[in-house]
Amino acid sequence: MTSDASLAALNERVAAVNDVLNAVSVLTWDSRTMMPPGGAETRGQQIATLTRVARDLLLAPETERALDEAEKAVEGLAEDSAEQRLVMQTRQAVAHHGRVPASLIQERAALRTVAQAAWIEGRAKSDFSIFSPHLEKTIKLARSYADCIGWSEHPYDAMVSIYEPGETAASLKTLFATLRSGLLPILEAARSRPAPRSDFLFRDFPEEGQRAFGLSMAQKLGYDLRRGRLDTTVHPFEVSFTRNDVRITTRYNRAYLPASIFGTAHETGHGLYEQGVDPAYTRTTLATDLVGLYAVGGTSFGAHESQSRLWENHVVRSRTFWQLHFPELQRHFPEQLGDVDAEAFYRAVTRIEPGFIRVEADELTYDFHIMLRVEIECALMDGSLAVADLPATWNAVIKRDLGLNVPDDAKGVLQDVHWSTGYIGSFPTYTIGNVMAAQIMETLRQDDPSLDRAIEGGEYSGLAEALRTRMWQHGRRFQREELLMRETGRSLDPAPYLSYLKGKYAG
Amino acid sequence: MTSDASLAALNERVAAVNDVLNAVSVLTWDSRTMMPPGGAETRGQQIATLTRVARDLLLAPETERALDEAEKAVEGLAEDSAEQRLVMQTRQAVAHHGRVPASLIQERAALRTVAQAAWIEGRAKSDFSIFSPHLEKTIKLARSYADCIGWSEHPYDAMVSIYEPGETAASLKTLFATLRSGLLPILEAARSRPAPRSDFLFRDFPEEGQRAFGLSMAQKLGYDLRRGRLDTTVHPFEVSFTRNDVRITTRYNRAYLPASIFGTAHETGHGLYEQGVDPAYTRTTLATDLVGLYAVGGTSFGAHESQSRLWENHVVRSRTFWQLHFPELQRHFPEQLGDVDAEAFYRAVTRIEPGFIRVEADELTYDFHIMLRVEIECALMDGSLAVADLPATWNAVIKRDLGLNVPDDAKGVLQDVHWSTGYIGSFPTYTIGNVMAAQIMETLRQDDPSLDRAIEGGEYSGLAEALRTRMWQHGRRFQREELLMRETGRSLDPAPYLSYLKGKYAG
Repeated sequence: MTSDASLAALNERVAAVNDVLNAVSVLTWDSRTMMPPGGAETRGQQIATLTRVARDLLLAPETERALDEAEKAVEGLAEDSAEQRLVMQTRQAVAHHGRVPASLIQERAALRTVAQAAWIEGRAKSDFSIFSPHLEKTIKLARSYADCIGWSEHPYDAMVSIYEPGETAASLKTLFATLRSGLLPILEAARSRPAPRSDFLFRDFPEEGQRAFGLSMAQKLGYDLRRGRLDTTVHPFEVSFTRNDVRITTRYNRAYLPASIFGTAHETGHGLYEQGVDPAYTRTTLATDLVGLYAVGGTSFGAHESQSRLWENHVVRSRTFWQLHFPELQRHFPEQLGDVDAEAFYRAVTRIEPGFIRVEADELTYDFHIMLRVEIECALMDGSLAVADLPATWNAVIKRDLGLNVPDDAKGVLQDVHWSTGYIGSFPTYTIGNVMAAQIMETLRQDDPSLDRAIEGGEYSGLAEALRTRMWQHGRRFQREELLMRETGRSLDPAPYLSYLKGKYAG
Repeated sequence: MTSDASLAALNERVAAVNDVLNAVSVLTWDSRTMMPPGGAETRGQQIATLTRVARDLLLAPETERALDEAEKAVEGLAEDSAEQRLVMQTRQAVAHHGRVPASLIQERAALRTVAQAAWIEGRAKSDFSIFSPHLEKTIKLARSYADCIGWSEHPYDAMVSIYEPGETAASLKTLFATLRSGLLPILEAARSRPAPRSDFLFRDFPEEGQRAFGLSMAQKLGYDLRRGRLDTTVHPFEVSFTRNDVRITTRYNRAYLPASIFGTAHETGHGLYEQGVDPAYTRTTLATDLVGLYAVGGTSFGAHESQSRLWENHVVRSRTFWQLHFPELQRHFPEQLGDVDAEAFYRAVTRIEPGFIRVEADELTYDFHIMLRVEIECALMDGSLAVADLPATWNAVIKRDLGLNVPDDAKGVLQDVHWSTGYIGSFPTYTIGNVMAAQIMETLRQDDPSLDRAIEGGEYSGLAEALRTRMWQHGRRFQREELLMRETGRSLDPAPYLSYLKGKYAG
């Protein structure tokens, strides 16, 4: 990158914002992995203060002046140069936050605290009415928020733009229609087959062996422990405090082995993305989401999810992977897995079994859970669905798509934490990740016919290097669509995903 | 506390500074316990940014305005009321930081980075000349710093005032003269006795048993794990992120059992102080050192050290303690300690053995290590000692006081990290802690004749409650001398300390 003084001045201001946001990430990681229960209240205040400080630094007149100067300095550089993008993205973030009044942010934060408590109670009692008044307020504030950000066709467009710039209610509707018509026959075919044996997955698997296998697997996939850690949490996640300190967490269920294995593979995928960002982008806009005020190096939530899904499903949830590595797993659990072979294990972890819970869903039913939530979010945002009617709608869609009768709200509309935290518009990114992962894998295979041979041999560094070069190193420099056009020659395309699923589950 | 609106406005500003400083503490704790090595560089930048943000918030015109208003609001309240002290201490902190230019802070921070690296190399090679040019610059900057803060008699006074307000080069000289003349005969008497057996302390003690005993001991002393944690570090410390999240660390040496036991007892004492601060002081000046920009609830470094020393030496390093709890330690190490009884263990952990290393020193020689360092710091600050002559002076004093020939600089002048980090003036607080601990214990015993009976019975809650009421709850409300006058009826007095040591080691 050029070392122009005005650009350096802007970068210095942005670096400070970056530092504060990364500190927020450390505090969040700590609160979910290490913090004693007593610390919760003051930790919330610390995070709120730092988030406000980051926003204030971003909206300070000094940033505005540095931006004006830097814009002049980068004139004439290529439109997609890192320098131009740095300046442009800072400008966009300043504009975004300038449109949202601090009072609205405070209202949302205050609501989040009570809404989360109500959601926890409501879910425990499986009583939607405890949570529904707070959800009504959440939707109301989300609409105000969308109005501040601005939208033309649908208020949902503004919310989605925070997580997945470029997607809209309309574009998602089109995507989902294609997916639905493609998925249904694959799901039907898969369900018509006899269920494989899976009883052995539910035996007693002590945490120690799960952790040892998970760590070994993450390192095989390329996760660098000199720049990372693996810890235990209730809800697994990945977080980075710069590319050189990227942490992942998992959860060990003694009574169900796949949860930690595929969970760890998933978070490893996220972690690889962050560890692979160009070092030159450290502490810049290209390594931090200044719109979402969230320290993340990936270009969009969907792009990030594409990497977790790619490693989780295309690499680890594959016949090839278990042919190679099942013996290692067996060594950790000689008694529990003594009567099982690699093929049986692979068939068990790819069995199709429609259920109520999104996070436990198999590859063929997962997207139906997402489409349901996005449909509901859109309808809540445009007012065509009342909060009071939510459970009935939810249960009807689950019946229609998966043929299941939702027994209670805890297993239905109350299962996800998202809405209680004010997150509206992030669900689509899970499905976009699935679609994008398959699209990228297809391209990589076409461009390098030896790739599969290497993967079959347990050699994952070629795949990681290809992804690093084509995707990870760019951080947030390119928009998701731009990246897909550059690397795959086309926009987001569900065809490779449907083809992958068909081959795997109905082939 | 009153709920006056102008005071509330000031407290809100101070609360934000508190939040940022507590975030710094979280980042520091993480860097010393959890952070993968790759994270070091960006972590340093994050901490520097947050420290700057805290200072900027403190020096902002809004704080000044809030201070002016709050000063009017508390007029008429008692001079030592929490409200008056809150306002007064904020005013002092603003004045302090207003006197120190940001450029000097940056110079010191920049020097710290290279000085620490040079110190590490110098110590590894036992070559003072690698570190000495950086120490010269450190002293030069410390003098500039002292001049900014202001001093009348000795530049060292300004440095000490950061850690131990009220102490000066002159007051320390007086204190040390009394200590020296009191300590020397006790040390001589102790050294003339036959050394007790201590070989069993050096057997192989696996970490698991050390940790289990340490955790159990900390809880016996009153440390609340719902508001705390015990982790492992190279250099043990205590840190609080508010009274409800107070963490301690220790180090396990397999080949020397006492290190973790007494280290954990020491940090537990610090932790109890923080956990005992009045909840009403959370996020106020009375729970954070705004002059040192360090989130600490104790009234001075010396007062804090008094609590760690009290629990470490007066409680845990006592015959009574081991008569009661040695069987528990034996259960953790039945083979290693099978041939030892409580009395032999007590005698081993109170043996007197002059050595080169401060952190390994026994109770009778520890203060000589401190007096040496303070003498040198004063002479460096006033220019009467050149950095080049430091090793010769150091070695001569060790010879004079302890009768030992320092074999190399690593075991001499290069052993402590303090000077490489720019800390000048904090050493006296260790000895002040020793003195103050004995003074407080004496008063508590006089005021409650049943206290020793309870402690002999393994009941420590009465002692903790007395300390909480008399000291911990007040946080930083009272100055150290004020607290001593209130609770013991006199200023810092070395007599109880010398009497305690005489009874224990020459009785």
